[in-house]
Amino acid sequence: MSEAKQIVLAQRPQGMPKPTDFRVEPVAMPKPEHGQALLRVIYLSVDPYMRGRISGVASYVKGVDPGDVMVGGCVGQVVESKAPGLKPGDFVEGPMGWRSHVVLPAHVLRKLDPAAAPISTANGVLGMPGMTAYFALLDVCQPRAGDTVVVSAAAGAVGQVVGQIAKIAGCRVVGIAGGARKCAFVRDELGFDAAVDYKAEKDLGAALKAAAPNGVDVYFDNVGGEIHDTVMTQIRLNARIVVCGTISTYNNKPGEGDIGPRQLRRLLVNRARIQGFLVFDYLHRYPEGLQRMAAWVKEGRIKYREDIVEGLEKAPEALIGVLEGKNFGKMLVRVGADPTR
Amino acid sequence: MSEAKQIVLAQRPQGMPKPTDFRVEPVAMPKPEHGQALLRVIYLSVDPYMRGRISGVASYVKGVDPGDVMVGGCVGQVVESKAPGLKPGDFVEGPMGWRSHVVLPAHVLRKLDPAAAPISTANGVLGMPGMTAYFALLDVCQPRAGDTVVVSAAAGAVGQVVGQIAKIAGCRVVGIAGGARKCAFVRDELGFDAAVDYKAEKDLGAALKAAAPNGVDVYFDNVGGEIHDTVMTQIRLNARIVVCGTISTYNNKPGEGDIGPRQLRRLLVNRARIQGFLVFDYLHRYPEGLQRMAAWVKEGRIKYREDIVEGLEKAPEALIGVLEGKNFGKMLVRVGADPTR
Repeated sequence: MSEAKQIVLAQRPQGMPKPTDFRVEPVAMPKPEHGQALLRVIYLSVDPYMRGRISGVASYVKGVDPGDVMVGGCVGQVVESKAPGLKPGDFVEGPMGWRSHVVLPAHVLRKLDPAAAPISTANGVLGMPGMTAYFALLDVCQPRAGDTVVVSAAAGAVGQVVGQIAKIAGCRVVGIAGGARKCAFVRDELGFDAAVDYKAEKDLGAALKAAAPNGVDVYFDNVGGEIHDTVMTQIRLNARIVVCGTISTYNNKPGEGDIGPRQLRRLLVNRARIQGFLVFDYLHRYPEGLQRMAAWVKEGRIKYREDIVEGLEKAPEALIGVLEGKNFGKMLVRVGADPTR
Repeated sequence: MSEAKQIVLAQRPQGMPKPTDFRVEPVAMPKPEHGQALLRVIYLSVDPYMRGRISGVASYVKGVDPGDVMVGGCVGQVVESKAPGLKPGDFVEGPMGWRSHVVLPAHVLRKLDPAAAPISTANGVLGMPGMTAYFALLDVCQPRAGDTVVVSAAAGAVGQVVGQIAKIAGCRVVGIAGGARKCAFVRDELGFDAAVDYKAEKDLGAALKAAAPNGVDVYFDNVGGEIHDTVMTQIRLNARIVVCGTISTYNNKPGEGDIGPRQLRRLLVNRARIQGFLVFDYLHRYPEGLQRMAAWVKEGRIKYREDIVEGLEKAPEALIGVLEGKNFGKMLVRVGADPTR
């Protein structure tokens, strides 16, 4: 069998990663043992959390050290199986990493039904980003009909789903995104009530005030930083803020502080709360989330947009693009052919 | 009948209030109308929130403008009543303000049973501070047996109750207080497991680490500022932080920022939350809280310490003392004789 490829971290990035922080390596094709399957990767999901994994800073899971293969969720196809329940040709989702091929145990894989939804959605609206949106919004923020919900990185993999679920929940939805194209997308294609272009607005607070004149009941925060500070000045009584990402700080150097206004007085006066969220805590409830989300996708109530680049070698550039906000929709790398398209 | 006295705000304080920001005024003795009672004030409760009321900054209730009588919760005695259910000699708690005498409608007064507990406790452990401790700790922080609970301003009216309830709930309790005397008090008299003297410790983080080696599950924050920042560096998974006061910032000038480390990344990684609290939201549940707290006081499981100064004229100094952390226990001004002691 031909050689496989993988991408390893060549060195820890300083600030924004560079393509040369990564290295493509040929490797021998792995062989599955009992309970395992050999997979070829079709789609690699590229997500902001990956910056944290290569930072060398202790976080919620072990990071990637120089020389390690980069981690990542993927959709792939079974090539050879020694696991009951998996046969060649099956489509699966799992933690395959930045690889062309990989051997994984069956228990870390989720089998996909290509007739139910495009297989790429298992990395997006019907995968980790979709489940992040679903549980962080509905469980943590508990939006009520009539609430104003603001979401940052609104055109991203998580943000676009957050806004659409909030619309289903009867809320007024304001997206914050970078650039006119993304703003038009969330407003005109996804049905958000308003969009604020944080790159174009000189006075973000005034723009937000115009878009959310009654104040902010729920803030779904994917970015942190100054956008967070601005939204916090406009929260209402009993506001709920969920922190799902802090992309604005991901390229800070170790030890470089993340300094801003303390929000304590504002939280007290408004009896508001800020809560951190990691989707892994909801793994046991994925079946509920996936079922509802799949129904909404099928009914056309949840739309999604993907931003696909071709070839494993493009993964570093794709990650850099995500960190710079250049992607437009869920960022995917097509590593191998998708026979369902 | 002889004249009454009141204290009005003479001018808005700049930074720490001065005694000359207040003015004692003689006033004619007021007369009750139907549904009202004339009260003589016995104890005036002096609390940190009062600094916010005189700041001129919009907050959760209307503030005190120059010329207005200072607000405050008090324990008093009925002198003359035109309200059913109240008769001369009855003890009541209510928003009497910085006055020797006041007429109030009966519906804002809570009748006290001097046989059940000393009447002064209606301003403390069996009043607003006690209810703040009870609901903010048990409802918002939801301490579990085995949790480490840290409370700042630990020797204050709220803090001393927080720590003792947390002990009843089976937690390890660490108090942060200013000065060896307060630390010894919460440790030796109230039964906290450890106390950290933030004024004496050069490295507050190291001292907290020694007192709470497993990290912080619950932080009951009465102060904000740098103590908040330090505690936040030691929170554990699913930590719950309640913001009940931000006394460290109360003397900031209007527009003066409250700047510090943003806690967003830490909240995300730990799936932790920070929530603001105001006890008024729990007024409908006071009967539950007062009943349980009264039982604990009677059983000797909740102790309390009062810091009483004599004479209405001392109220400004008492408030300044509270803001400087000079009080040692619940700060009260004895405005009139307490016939029960």
